[in-house]
Amino acid sequence: MSRRLAGPLPAAVALRLELIDDPRAISTISASVAEAGGRVRTLSTVRRAGRAGAEPGDSGTVEVELEVEDADEHTLVALLEPLREVIALTVTRPLAKVFGKRVIVVGGGAQVAQVALGAVSEADRHNLRGERISVDTIPLVGEEPIASAVRAVADLPRARMLVLAGSIMGGEISRAADELRAVGIPIIALNMVGSITDHVDLVVSDPVQAGTMAVMAVSDTATFDLAKQRGRRY
Amino acid sequence: MSRRLAGPLPAAVALRLELIDDPRAISTISASVAEAGGRVRTLSTVRRAGRAGAEPGDSGTVEVELEVEDADEHTLVALLEPLREVIALTVTRPLAKVFGKRVIVVGGGAQVAQVALGAVSEADRHNLRGERISVDTIPLVGEEPIASAVRAVADLPRARMLVLAGSIMGGEISRAADELRAVGIPIIALNMVGSITDHVDLVVSDPVQAGTMAVMAVSDTATFDLAKQRGRRY
Repeated sequence: MSRRLAGPLPAAVALRLELIDDPRAISTISASVAEAGGRVRTLSTVRRAGRAGAEPGDSGTVEVELEVEDADEHTLVALLEPLREVIALTVTRPLAKVFGKRVIVVGGGAQVAQVALGAVSEADRHNLRGERISVDTIPLVGEEPIASAVRAVADLPRARMLVLAGSIMGGEISRAADELRAVGIPIIALNMVGSITDHVDLVVSDPVQAGTMAVMAVSDTATFDLAKQRGRRY
Repeated sequence: MSRRLAGPLPAAVALRLELIDDPRAISTISASVAEAGGRVRTLSTVRRAGRAGAEPGDSGTVEVELEVEDADEHTLVALLEPLREVIALTVTRPLAKVFGKRVIVVGGGAQVAQVALGAVSEADRHNLRGERISVDTIPLVGEEPIASAVRAVADLPRARMLVLAGSIMGGEISRAADELRAVGIPIIALNMVGSITDHVDLVVSDPVQAGTMAVMAVSDTATFDLAKQRGRRY
């Protein structure tokens, strides 16, 4: 399983496309991106127009956010704009430049909110100096929903750190934590009941400090190295 | 510009693919998805293995999260697995089922944290009853960074509501707010200095209540209709 590369990513071109929602539309678009020498890195369907009331055979339209690396913007636009499937095209900004790295907080509501307080306050200080760090949260209850969320952090674009905020976690959540760390995403957990504290990089008792440390660990400017703290408890 | 459709989305199949990072890889994958009758809805490059130390011409590998609608899982896997570009394939869960709808909070750190406190606490209550609502935040300073973030909310998958948390916003932020509402994403703003309060759906003075109302407005189970509150101030 590959690990994240350190360092900056190649420049990306971002486009918002309104497309005819034909099953072949995306493969036509991707073929043109490849023709421009580019690689499709992100594609998100952000809105869709219904087929309700439309003629039979009318496939409706979708709005898609597309991010491409290794392509020249003008070449890409010139190749995509004439396609039959493309109704409208706007150049936008890659989400990494706007929302940046993501710290994900999962767990019980009261504790997630306190971790978020620390993380947002610390991210504010870094973003003031030109970084882009987001703090994304979901309050959840129960072993299966939390384990699923831990596993799914591996599928979230730009996720760099998970904080587990709760009072008791173990079992399937600990197995999911091992899997997430194996793909290169570190985890900070609150000090809590259950096996989870043996399956994370760092254990922190105070939720506000846990959030602060999570942001420091992903920041480019803070002098905090999670590798040096691995296995410790605060 | 199309508006979101109300109601549930079609079932999606989610796959994590390890791919040879060839410029044509995504168009090959998309063509096979179309062959299975599917539509690519989401594609995110979540990890990449470097080319450092590799042989010249070695294109490295990437891990991609793919979500497809209208395709049968077994047919899709059977078509993708034999492709030369596919090194590994795992069935995962669509992110909409794990993290659900997203309430986005943008603004000054202190206020973002208080809105998050209200939103996370309210989301906790809804998620306990089986919904999935996330609260995603970024603290930012300055007219241009905030206006860019407001515009980029239109490009975030599953974003259903924006809360603007600050003490003074207007100018380009108000223009960006009009654009975001035009694509169907409503906005709640704190009561603050500047023109922004004339360019949002609802103005709320207390940040905890603003967060709570934002979650109630996107929830399927709360009896709170933002349309009936449009233009009001609390």
